[in-house]
Amino acid sequence: MNAIGERLLQALGTDAVRTEPEDLAVYAFDAYSEDRLPSAAVLPNSVREVTQTVRIATECGEPIVPRGAGTGLCGGAVPTRGGVVVSFARMNRILELDVPNRRARVQPGLINLDLSRATASEGLFYAPDPSSQKISMLGGNVGTNAGGPHCLSYGTTVNHVLGLEFVDSDGEVVHVAQDEAGYDLTGLLVGSEGTLGIVTAIDVRLMRLPEAVRVCVAVFGDVESASEAVSQIIGAGIVPIALEIMDKVITGAVEAAFHAGYPQEAGAVLLVEIAGLQEDMDAGEAALATIARKCGAISWRAAKSQAERDLLWAARKGAAGAVGRIAPNYYIQDCTVPRTKLPQAIHQVAAVARAHGLEVGNVFHAGDGNLHPLIMFDRREKRQVQAVIDAGSEILEACIALGGTISGEHGIGYEKRETLSRIFSADDLATMARVRDAIDPARRFNPDKIFPSGASCGEVRRVPA
Amino acid sequence: MNAIGERLLQALGTDAVRTEPEDLAVYAFDAYSEDRLPSAAVLPNSVREVTQTVRIATECGEPIVPRGAGTGLCGGAVPTRGGVVVSFARMNRILELDVPNRRARVQPGLINLDLSRATASEGLFYAPDPSSQKISMLGGNVGTNAGGPHCLSYGTTVNHVLGLEFVDSDGEVVHVAQDEAGYDLTGLLVGSEGTLGIVTAIDVRLMRLPEAVRVCVAVFGDVESASEAVSQIIGAGIVPIALEIMDKVITGAVEAAFHAGYPQEAGAVLLVEIAGLQEDMDAGEAALATIARKCGAISWRAAKSQAERDLLWAARKGAAGAVGRIAPNYYIQDCTVPRTKLPQAIHQVAAVARAHGLEVGNVFHAGDGNLHPLIMFDRREKRQVQAVIDAGSEILEACIALGGTISGEHGIGYEKRETLSRIFSADDLATMARVRDAIDPARRFNPDKIFPSGASCGEVRRVPA
Repeated sequence: MNAIGERLLQALGTDAVRTEPEDLAVYAFDAYSEDRLPSAAVLPNSVREVTQTVRIATECGEPIVPRGAGTGLCGGAVPTRGGVVVSFARMNRILELDVPNRRARVQPGLINLDLSRATASEGLFYAPDPSSQKISMLGGNVGTNAGGPHCLSYGTTVNHVLGLEFVDSDGEVVHVAQDEAGYDLTGLLVGSEGTLGIVTAIDVRLMRLPEAVRVCVAVFGDVESASEAVSQIIGAGIVPIALEIMDKVITGAVEAAFHAGYPQEAGAVLLVEIAGLQEDMDAGEAALATIARKCGAISWRAAKSQAERDLLWAARKGAAGAVGRIAPNYYIQDCTVPRTKLPQAIHQVAAVARAHGLEVGNVFHAGDGNLHPLIMFDRREKRQVQAVIDAGSEILEACIALGGTISGEHGIGYEKRETLSRIFSADDLATMARVRDAIDPARRFNPDKIFPSGASCGEVRRVPA
Repeated sequence: MNAIGERLLQALGTDAVRTEPEDLAVYAFDAYSEDRLPSAAVLPNSVREVTQTVRIATECGEPIVPRGAGTGLCGGAVPTRGGVVVSFARMNRILELDVPNRRARVQPGLINLDLSRATASEGLFYAPDPSSQKISMLGGNVGTNAGGPHCLSYGTTVNHVLGLEFVDSDGEVVHVAQDEAGYDLTGLLVGSEGTLGIVTAIDVRLMRLPEAVRVCVAVFGDVESASEAVSQIIGAGIVPIALEIMDKVITGAVEAAFHAGYPQEAGAVLLVEIAGLQEDMDAGEAALATIARKCGAISWRAAKSQAERDLLWAARKGAAGAVGRIAPNYYIQDCTVPRTKLPQAIHQVAAVARAHGLEVGNVFHAGDGNLHPLIMFDRREKRQVQAVIDAGSEILEACIALGGTISGEHGIGYEKRETLSRIFSADDLATMARVRDAIDPARRFNPDKIFPSGASCGEVRRVPA
């Protein structure tokens, strides 16, 4: 056994520490194509066990990689340099629920959907709803500033986190709060992908469940006309709580898996949800349906029951898994363009896939201009793997050229770090790197993530004026 | 003339630089009780002039204090160590207006209200609306993360800033963006009170003007019953876009100045605004009026015209100025408590004022639990000045004891910096200080602000574990 494994076992006991390769294998990867075994994995039960882990790792000079459910798409949770993975599977409780002030304090291992389930009887819910919400953890959601279909109206994770407790690289417990005073380090920690510290408690805002919701499905001949409907809906000053598009490939896969009633022959499906007072639902739906028809919708229908609404959403959120039925492996890219550029972006995604001989399906948070091309491949064919990685980069470049950016809601991780310098100047990156180096000078937390190789204070050279 | 004045004049010319004491006097103070003349003041016309100023100040070893309209309450814009004040009075333009994507890029000297005025014809507005919005500048609003009556529903400045351009302590231009990728330094810069850099451009979110608004006035016998109505309104799941209370003292002063129709004999006035679809206004008002009456409202009325609504708001936002009619000077405190603790907080404010022999009026963003006690005094009486400062601190302590915090929307500045350690631990403060020292290692930008004296990396000692 390696030295750090031994020290961790001594301090925390066999129940909390894994050191055998067969046990460590599950901590080696996320949904990206890289994987690497850590030296050890810790499953802490308490903040104290987290601080002990950090101190031991620091003394051993080993990196520390915090891990939620490992549903990330870009290698953010992969221990690329080995070291200790800290999994939050056991720190999964709601610590405090404050109904009158609509907030909760939770542990980072709490599964996203479990929070909404636990608060539904109080008429409350937690708004950010990544498609992975049945399994992904709030700690991971905080790390990537996770989004989801309903972020169109509610905003992403950063808009719902009021404060954090985290363990810094000295093993000290630090608290930051968005609504107190001083620097707002909450917003800095959210989306920092575990590079600044290990979050051990999260104060979240809860929202009141709307009195009524309505979920509608519009069918279009092609993605362009569905996208045009999205632009016109937003342009008309209507902000539904979700506006999602699936193309023919994805709709076919989803329908085969879920039988939710999405028409398989459709060129594109638009899923729209509105929420508010019961008495406003009919007028709201009518306004949306009128715009959809003007943009060429072939059909329009509203789900008639909670069960039907749930099924439509389960199918939409299960899109990635459903693609597993039609291809051995898939790769999901996550990038954004201004909403009005969606049709162009979809054309370019298709062109990139065609050039590499790959099949691609598209599912996207259309209201936010957030694309999720799913490229299908077979991991056993080395050439295809490389083609997929190349196609992923080319899609990012296409989005940047259209005025978009390289991540909508899944972070930068390992995959996209070199691309970050396409968005930010050397001075911009140097400023971020200074902040990182101020809080984690040894870059012990999740190394190789977010920043291009070489982006530390000393390494990124500023051009002298 | 001092050395830095000479160098600035040489580089930027007489039009942009002030060095004479009589010209500098206007840059010596804000609404707090401290003042100090700077060595020089610069009124840049361009980002380039800002970078030049920063470089010259750095070479001369002088501090740099950015300044908006100087409406801050806690000494944030006071050049406590002299140095160069950079006033943004001339950089006051809208650089870009992107109506389809509802965003604008503006210069920091743009007056808050001018942005909403300039975009009203497009059906848009900028939501944060501090009472100072007729004169305060967006750069200053960013520095303090300014709020306002309508932040109850719309959130504070940080929720409306999408990105920033700033000049760092090396004189380099850095851009940060909330919706791009990498660390979200936007949220860090907002509310950092000029201690991290000088903001030179702001990307803001604009909102669509609601179809209909309704402003109502409820009259209560005392502040307790008005506060109870606020708690019950929020508890019922209704979030008006504003919920403001004025006590008898403030209502009297406001009415004498504005003749807006607020009843002077009332123990407390509740101002409520709702917004949405025209057809929902009657039902919305009825729900609010029912709750108000249940809590003991003596009367309820809705403004009948835009002119009447405007007058009610002008009077409310002019409350501080109106107090000038009844006292030679006033001091405004800014602090928060959980909404349900408002009656207790008001009692304690009264007790503190009584103990010091001072008269106090209260106007507050009740929906947010954000108090603004106005203490009246006469600056010519030294003993009264000290009593006011002491009363201000005691009010902060009372709010902390009730579970609140020391700033609602005006920042920490110079006045409250020692109090910050009542909210954050030494480890918390050390983390903030590390971030500051990473970005501005020489603490050239707005020294003496936010942090308790001694709160730098080296000076705040961590307790060894």
